[in-house]
Amino acid sequence: MTMAKKLIITLLLLISIVFVHSSSFRVEVEEEFEPPHAGEQEHPGRGPGSVPGRGPGGSSGEEEEERSRDHPYHYRKRSFESWFRSKEGFVKILPKFTKRSPFLFRGIENYRFWLAEMEPTTFLVPHHFDADSVFLVLQGKGVIEFVTDNTNEAFHIRRGDVVRIPSGVTHFITNTNQTVPFRLAKLAIPVNIPGYAKDYFPAPSQFQQSYLAGFSKDVISTSFNLPEDLVERLVRKSKQINQGILRRVSPDQIKELTQHATDPSNKHKKHKDKDTSVIFKPFNIFEKDPIYSNDFGHFHEARPKNFDQLQDLHISVAWVSMKQGSVLLPHFDSKATFVLFVENGCARFEMASPYKFHGEQQQQWPGQQEEQEDISGNVYKIVSHVCKGDVFINPAGHPFTILTQDQDFVVTGFGIHATDSTRTFLAGKENMLNNLNTVATRLTFGVGREVAKQLFTSQNFTYFAPTNPSRQQFPQNNRKPSFQSIFNFAGF
Amino acid sequence: MTMAKKLIITLLLLISIVFVHSSSFRVEVEEEFEPPHAGEQEHPGRGPGSVPGRGPGGSSGEEEEERSRDHPYHYRKRSFESWFRSKEGFVKILPKFTKRSPFLFRGIENYRFWLAEMEPTTFLVPHHFDADSVFLVLQGKGVIEFVTDNTNEAFHIRRGDVVRIPSGVTHFITNTNQTVPFRLAKLAIPVNIPGYAKDYFPAPSQFQQSYLAGFSKDVISTSFNLPEDLVERLVRKSKQINQGILRRVSPDQIKELTQHATDPSNKHKKHKDKDTSVIFKPFNIFEKDPIYSNDFGHFHEARPKNFDQLQDLHISVAWVSMKQGSVLLPHFDSKATFVLFVENGCARFEMASPYKFHGEQQQQWPGQQEEQEDISGNVYKIVSHVCKGDVFINPAGHPFTILTQDQDFVVTGFGIHATDSTRTFLAGKENMLNNLNTVATRLTFGVGREVAKQLFTSQNFTYFAPTNPSRQQFPQNNRKPSFQSIFNFAGF
Amino acid sequence: MTMAKKLIITLLLLISIVFVHSSSFRVEVEEEFEPPHAGEQEHPGRGPGSVPGRGPGGSSGEEEEERSRDHPYHYRKRSFESWFRSKEGFVKILPKFTKRSPFLFRGIENYRFWLAEMEPTTFLVPHHFDADSVFLVLQGKGVIEFVTDNTNEAFHIRRGDVVRIPSGVTHFITNTNQTVPFRLAKLAIPVNIPGYAKDYFPAPSQFQQSYLAGFSKDVISTSFNLPEDLVERLVRKSKQINQGILRRVSPDQIKELTQHATDPSNKHKKHKDKDTSVIFKPFNIFEKDPIYSNDFGHFHEARPKNFDQLQDLHISVAWVSMKQGSVLLPHFDSKATFVLFVENGCARFEMASPYKFHGEQQQQWPGQQEEQEDISGNVYKIVSHVCKGDVFINPAGHPFTILTQDQDFVVTGFGIHATDSTRTFLAGKENMLNNLNTVATRLTFGVGREVAKQLFTSQNFTYFAPTNPSRQQFPQNNRKPSFQSIFNFAGF
Repeated sequence: MTMAKKLIITLLLLISIVFVHSSSFRVEVEEEFEPPHAGEQEHPGRGPGSVPGRGPGGSSGEEEEERSRDHPYHYRKRSFESWFRSKEGFVKILPKFTKRSPFLFRGIENYRFWLAEMEPTTFLVPHHFDADSVFLVLQGKGVIEFVTDNTNEAFHIRRGDVVRIPSGVTHFITNTNQTVPFRLAKLAIPVNIPGYAKDYFPAPSQFQQSYLAGFSKDVISTSFNLPEDLVERLVRKSKQINQGILRRVSPDQIKELTQHATDPSNKHKKHKDKDTSVIFKPFNIFEKDPIYSNDFGHFHEARPKNFDQLQDLHISVAWVSMKQGSVLLPHFDSKATFVLFVENGCARFEMASPYKFHGEQQQQWPGQQEEQEDISGNVYKIVSHVCKGDVFINPAGHPFTILTQDQDFVVTGFGIHATDSTRTFLAGKENMLNNLNTVATRLTFGVGREVAKQLFTSQNFTYFAPTNPSRQQFPQNNRKPSFQSIFNFAGF
Repeated sequence: MTMAKKLIITLLLLISIVFVHSSSFRVEVEEEFEPPHAGEQEHPGRGPGSVPGRGPGGSSGEEEEERSRDHPYHYRKRSFESWFRSKEGFVKILPKFTKRSPFLFRGIENYRFWLAEMEPTTFLVPHHFDADSVFLVLQGKGVIEFVTDNTNEAFHIRRGDVVRIPSGVTHFITNTNQTVPFRLAKLAIPVNIPGYAKDYFPAPSQFQQSYLAGFSKDVISTSFNLPEDLVERLVRKSKQINQGILRRVSPDQIKELTQHATDPSNKHKKHKDKDTSVIFKPFNIFEKDPIYSNDFGHFHEARPKNFDQLQDLHISVAWVSMKQGSVLLPHFDSKATFVLFVENGCARFEMASPYKFHGEQQQQWPGQQEEQEDISGNVYKIVSHVCKGDVFINPAGHPFTILTQDQDFVVTGFGIHATDSTRTFLAGKENMLNNLNTVATRLTFGVGREVAKQLFTSQNFTYFAPTNPSRQQFPQNNRKPSFQSIFNFAGF
Repeated sequence: MTMAKKLIITLLLLISIVFVHSSSFRVEVEEEFEPPHAGEQEHPGRGPGSVPGRGPGGSSGEEEEERSRDHPYHYRKRSFESWFRSKEGFVKILPKFTKRSPFLFRGIENYRFWLAEMEPTTFLVPHHFDADSVFLVLQGKGVIEFVTDNTNEAFHIRRGDVVRIPSGVTHFITNTNQTVPFRLAKLAIPVNIPGYAKDYFPAPSQFQQSYLAGFSKDVISTSFNLPEDLVERLVRKSKQINQGILRRVSPDQIKELTQHATDPSNKHKKHKDKDTSVIFKPFNIFEKDPIYSNDFGHFHEARPKNFDQLQDLHISVAWVSMKQGSVLLPHFDSKATFVLFVENGCARFEMASPYKFHGEQQQQWPGQQEEQEDISGNVYKIVSHVCKGDVFINPAGHPFTILTQDQDFVVTGFGIHATDSTRTFLAGKENMLNNLNTVATRLTFGVGREVAKQLFTSQNFTYFAPTNPSRQQFPQNNRKPSFQSIFNFAGF
């Protein structure tokens, strides 16, 4: 008995050790957060080095250290998993968000991000998803056709078009252009299993079985009223079995595929099926004026309340283009979490987060032993140098900003839970802080009316501004000393 | 130290072995998937053996092997757990879906399936649930009465009636018929704890305590303004304490219980409580014409958008009856997952699924270590021989078909997430594949216009068809060679 | 090999033992349920001892034993976690409900309860949450001001006011009163991470960093167009850095802070932003007549369908005040789960629950191995002596009652999932049991018409009643014997 007890205690201790080891193993095999490589860092001198008070290319070592070295909000291009790839193009999918952080991304668990590219004159074979989805055409021109058992509708689509694909609706896409690849970003909202969606193909291809292969031969034969020995050819031994889901098309085939396609802007097309006609119809994000716009950038956004295609999904779609040397002023969304996809160029993203994101928090899941809640009041600094192909998550309420450097920049995004979400700017001509009344400003920031006015109204641009202050409307040299004197006067 | 390390390594190895063992144990003690018993298999010769190209009763060994031997979608009759049983009837409940597959059924976790049968002239005592629920009368005639603190409403109900029971509304049911058992199938949507619902009884019975027993004697006494020594008789020592929740009623009592009941079809009844009157009112699924119907079957469906009783729950209710030797042609639902309950006869269900359903996947749960996502492109073949009393889950997007053999067949179903869900048929006169245009068909299936026309238009029946091809409109012998020649011509 | 097997078996056995040990350890470190201390028990003689058939202050030992000693529904005042505390006031938060019971409270996991108190003439600095929230002013008078980037709106608020704070909207609060602390209870519905919400402060304070600290210095400098060396003072070295989030204000400052505030009852105020104007506007719960009211108590409730501020959140807000020696008659809510907060006095809460709440059930979570479902038919008696500052959870469908003793009592509450929820009373002039028809009553309770009438109509008060029967309308002495005779006559 005592011997057994000793053994148990020994075992307990040893097992604890083993557990410690194994859990550290586990962390190691978790999807790695990619620390920014030296080569990927913005080059000295290319950063917003000409900001007042900072030497060109200079950055204090202290600040460098402050930057969080690994955080879960930034998915580099290589984070995507290849779902299909051939010389005709590719389809990639981002890992489930909760795989990276079960805690931080639990609220967007049931959303998946896809990226697809089709080479010129190719065809994506018919299929349906068990997910509602919305895609944005990033580049190129094509035709999408929806097929149901009582209708088919084809639409021309081009850069900036937003397309809703309802769950369970069969569709196929053609890149009709002879030279430009057709590229799209897609957000999917699974309907069967939270966070997991599948494609269903009626016909077999190299890597995908036909869903008809899920039926016995005699069932297909009976259902299609076909001789059984032919079924096999249709389902399993198709001539196309060695082709991928992306296939070359000839100019004649393109002509035929597009001849009955509608231009979405054509409002007089009569639809066979009134219920679905609005849902199927693409719209272009550039049709309406940008919601924020000036010489430094344009911010287009399609909001759920304005488009039936987005309304029931509570998704908004954004397209932001910025000139080099610009800043999208700090702001936050009240309810929407944005999945941002960099379409062109590189830029610096900065974000403030009150949430810790260390390894240990990954286990904070109900039903498991929850650790003490973090009520530290800390703010974590998220800095990422993002480039074309990267994804970044900007959760609701988190102040966020974009700075471009020596190249123009385009980022697109899907806003999750976007219904009734509003965007609040913290700097620029219209900013929230400037709407604090005088007493509130004094009580909050410890400064008086004069200083506050200077603090929150010095930025004369709205939404987008230049990073180079010489482009600001009033000269830097004049302002600087007067500022100082005001601050000193105010005892700031 | 080296010794300890050795020990740790040894332990690690041993523990790994133990874990392997224990996890296999775990799988064994998990609710068993019931492999179809030899005796339950369709008998040779009874199957759809007369399908072209297949000898009567013959089935290739290869195909037999392809059939999945165990999968989670089929619940046999014995899977139900008995919740109440007496000579007056029974109430049974299906285990929580996620108990069988936490991964595959997570999207329907908060739904429970109940089955109840009341012998002739019996009474189900008043109670309420902490769940919204919808039931379908499978057989018999009765009266349901809803009781609130300001109204009571009784309705005659009969086979095919759909009844919404709002959460927290007290109700009781009488089987008014002298000879026929009253049977109902119910889908419950818990409001307190996802996937768990309870019954609350005001009066005690043999196995159920009164909820008044949750109060102290003095509280009941004060609340009801009753002498305390009588409270005990009411709550704990009722004369009915030895009876179950199902009780015999006399013809006189039935007369009294039904005298103020309304026929739901009576539209002129004035209700005391306007808000709830529509919700309480049953409707009959056979009132409207079937949505699909011919000589081989009828498909009735009540959809959420058409009935206030179903709208906020997003539930649809279906009733499908099929003749022997018929097929419900392959189809899928775009958003709805159907919980199907076999009411009469036996049939073969076939379904195509892109999801793996092996034991190891049961642990794929957020917060736990998620394994690599399956992007294989595989399609899994789900074949089940179902009989009266069985339940089958047909998830959204999954192509599905029913084949009857030598007996008529009735299956009912509740569609979960049914709002805006559409059904797409893959075979029959109206089918999706036939709406693919010529080029798309060639690119997809590798066949030309002529062959495609033959492939997808040979089935002249819509929705339901005979399994015996001699009943098809044009003779089999004429067609077969011409088919072959067309296919050969097309290089298929 | 045999040796290894033996070792494995031995290890298996030992590990089982270890697991048993370790799991019992785990239970011990779980958040403790606080057994009512002897001192907190209602004193003998103070209870509702004058109820008929019970000696003053007497309670049978048997009944005492029946009372559940620890259950998860009652949070004592000390269960709150301090989030901020200074001599200017405090902010406290209740632990996540699922931390106490992952099983029972899973349906309300995404709700958090906060409590705040501001000393006279103090100011809560501007901030926003990543949660929608609703607060109820429990005591005092103040001003709340909402600030966005295009508007600011200030409202006078006072005891009984209900205020909706939309997620992501910056706001600040002033206690304008010279003597009375300002106290509020808040229910928050996180938008980012289920069950977790954070505050975001533009300016730094003693324990809270500014969210501007999440940006690099050069970014702030560029965005605000400020010299970089001043940024540091704004973000990190503010004069206010040593102050908490609650700050003293002078009479002059109060005057300035309140001068442009609107009285919510003023209907003619024009708002700059029509969309949000209704949402921001507070309303008073006492404006409308109580839904239940008599000499013994008043029950005020603001329901989601009547207030735009509550509608999309499906939250109702309740305020119940009761005289000493009163009972809120037993009742249950059909869909709403109420988080009740005791604002004044002490009282006895009793509740009937069909759910077990033992430690082992805490692991019943999908994806884990679920234990057998409890279908026992048991009813568990929940009895709690609650006092000012305590929280109690009353889940949907659970019969519940409140008894006051020698002091007046005020309880407030937030109803979760309250849309379409109805309340059913079990006793009092309007009660559900009395609406059962004669036959149903006989079949259910085993009593006839005469007795039933006596049982369910003896209580002449509605909703609230006195606990002292001498205050009932007809004399106790006359009734008692006649009761007995009727019961005996009916063979009860």
